[in-house]
Amino acid sequence: MKHHTLPVSPSTVHWGYFSKAVQPALTLKSGDRATIETLTHHAYDDYDRMIAGDPGAEAVFKWTREEKGIVRRGSGPTTGPFERGSGEGIGVHIMTGPVAIENAEPGDILEVRVLDVRPRPSCSACYAGRCFGSNAAANWGFHYHDLIEEPKPREVVTIFELDTAGEPYAKAVYNYVWVPQTDPDGIVHPTIDYPGVPVDHRLIRKRENIMANVRVPARLHFGTMGLAPSEADFVSSIPPSYTGGNIDDWRIGKGARMYYPVAVDGAFFSVGDPHAAQGDSELGGTAIETSLTGDFEFILHKKNDLGGTPLEGLTHPLLETGDVWSVYGFTFPNYLAELGDNAQTEVAGHASLDKAMRDAFRKMRRFLMTVHKLSEDEAISLMSVGVDFGVTQVVDANWGVHGSIRKNVFRCD
Amino acid sequence: MKHHTLPVSPSTVHWGYFSKAVQPALTLKSGDRATIETLTHHAYDDYDRMIAGDPGAEAVFKWTREEKGIVRRGSGPTTGPFERGSGEGIGVHIMTGPVAIENAEPGDILEVRVLDVRPRPSCSACYAGRCFGSNAAANWGFHYHDLIEEPKPREVVTIFELDTAGEPYAKAVYNYVWVPQTDPDGIVHPTIDYPGVPVDHRLIRKRENIMANVRVPARLHFGTMGLAPSEADFVSSIPPSYTGGNIDDWRIGKGARMYYPVAVDGAFFSVGDPHAAQGDSELGGTAIETSLTGDFEFILHKKNDLGGTPLEGLTHPLLETGDVWSVYGFTFPNYLAELGDNAQTEVAGHASLDKAMRDAFRKMRRFLMTVHKLSEDEAISLMSVGVDFGVTQVVDANWGVHGSIRKNVFRCD
Repeated sequence: MKHHTLPVSPSTVHWGYFSKAVQPALTLKSGDRATIETLTHHAYDDYDRMIAGDPGAEAVFKWTREEKGIVRRGSGPTTGPFERGSGEGIGVHIMTGPVAIENAEPGDILEVRVLDVRPRPSCSACYAGRCFGSNAAANWGFHYHDLIEEPKPREVVTIFELDTAGEPYAKAVYNYVWVPQTDPDGIVHPTIDYPGVPVDHRLIRKRENIMANVRVPARLHFGTMGLAPSEADFVSSIPPSYTGGNIDDWRIGKGARMYYPVAVDGAFFSVGDPHAAQGDSELGGTAIETSLTGDFEFILHKKNDLGGTPLEGLTHPLLETGDVWSVYGFTFPNYLAELGDNAQTEVAGHASLDKAMRDAFRKMRRFLMTVHKLSEDEAISLMSVGVDFGVTQVVDANWGVHGSIRKNVFRCD
Repeated sequence: MKHHTLPVSPSTVHWGYFSKAVQPALTLKSGDRATIETLTHHAYDDYDRMIAGDPGAEAVFKWTREEKGIVRRGSGPTTGPFERGSGEGIGVHIMTGPVAIENAEPGDILEVRVLDVRPRPSCSACYAGRCFGSNAAANWGFHYHDLIEEPKPREVVTIFELDTAGEPYAKAVYNYVWVPQTDPDGIVHPTIDYPGVPVDHRLIRKRENIMANVRVPARLHFGTMGLAPSEADFVSSIPPSYTGGNIDDWRIGKGARMYYPVAVDGAFFSVGDPHAAQGDSELGGTAIETSLTGDFEFILHKKNDLGGTPLEGLTHPLLETGDVWSVYGFTFPNYLAELGDNAQTEVAGHASLDKAMRDAFRKMRRFLMTVHKLSEDEAISLMSVGVDFGVTQVVDANWGVHGSIRKNVFRCD
């Protein structure tokens, strides 16, 4: 077993997509561990607190008239014309990786154990050692066209500080309404339509003393984590799918084990979208987006060894924690395969919790019948009386419902 | 404070509906307590275990060619022609009550504290003292038209026994596929289409040794509990609505406090649909349906006293437990008012988790803004990072999504 480290830098992250075509940032063997840094793509909401003085973050977010540290942001074409800026695409998350796994092949299952998760402290002189995050109530949020206070619609950024002295929690520092921001290339962003746009704090009006009595219990986790799909070279980081990705389940934190079907040689694991806390549904469009570092262990399960294990027949992401097994239903189980050439833009137009519930039901039934050898009648009875279905997210184009079953239901576990 | 008792009998239950027009079975004052028995409407799935020897159950379920203990079952018309039997309507649950609250008026809020919940032991010679329940994977279940094993479709009844020696759990005893049953009036029931139909055990094939390794942790609760709506004299017990009813949240058990808006003079509280365990979604159509007895306390909050309390402006059911506050979103917040004269049949045709999620969002926003004095921007941020939305049920015509916020989020609580 070897322990690797993968810091963030322009050469170890890719922005806004999963890809089987990107050069791996790290290659390791099954059984190896790695400490991997991740950056929130919302750090520029408060440069002083979340970027300044941090060499990795400064290099990744660097964007002046002369130089843009990372041009490509998303899975779209790399030649214009662009509407929202050069390198624009679909997809927003800063992903660290890819991590290639030696000998991984399609049909295998990659197990990723999250051994530990730590916040990334501020490096700026004023805030050194303290930890901050940003929550954007954004145009893609569930609430956006259903506001009651004026002005409507509006986007609101709330900056949180994470207190880790005792049981960790987050507390709001201030918020502001998004106002049009002009990026270093001269393009105006009337809404949050491009990741990493520098927010000019001279233009915003900070509102302090907000959420005075509110402490949000921390749930450190990675919103987006998974493998490169086979269907395209560049796949938006926004919709979750059969190789994982932007699942946005806060249970994918310390102690979690995720199982992903390998779709391409080498598996090509990437991780990003770090969160300090999120509620089931991620209603407003984002969590408390905060940079995190994780310790991971990677275990490759070869396809010929899966029979008789909980991974037999697995064609979608699966979570194991100390207490539960969870499956993830999506509006489309594999939107890339189902929606054709324009899948990456088309997927958002059909978001449906009802379909996600249908998919979660089918995946849980398969799990109970295959792994626990229940008949269909036994599985359906158990689902009705002992499986909990929840709203994972309603903001990632391919909406999600998770189904969870407690391990203590099975005496043999 | 007075402590009342309300046993089950043909004169203390009404079957399949809420009603402002039924004579109260009990009248009490705010602050009073009551021990109330409830019967599961699925008890006839196994007469020997769940009815035989129990005077209350035998009287309620009595149905011979000569005599039917309770004719009316549901909210439909009481004169034929009937398709599924005399007294047929819409609605299935045996409801104990109504309990009238002195001085309750529309605009008030009735708080119902569930002080304790106990299973109702079998009285039959063979099973005395043991507790049983029935789970039906029924034609109204989410799975019904999406089965993979033959024969399709099919309904399956699973009988469970509840073990209360230690941490209580349920274990399957046997199951059977529903086969057409002829009721004492000679009407054939090819599916589970009428509540309380005697199941002739000579016609079914019991399958034993099922779910051998499965123990379902108990979650004793009342699936259907609430007040009479004002819109109609007889309201089906199936769709939950603004005065509560068939919410089917397993958190409504011991220690829960439910708050309901009073819609009619006297409030007219009824309770039924007792469950030993249910998962979020109640996927197959029912929980482990088992007769229970509860101890309740009733507190009337007069409309003029609600200002500045958590009940201010409340127009829908609200749950408080030791840990959380929960609101209930439905496809239609008040389907009776929204869908017109045929609301009770029309409601099932539009079931949607997406709409229930919309309603849950709006109700939680109102709660945070009104009760916790947050601005809309603060409320939406908090919902995104600290409120969990889950699938309450997808089987009660008016589908439900609940939103829960932990009390420890607020320092003042």
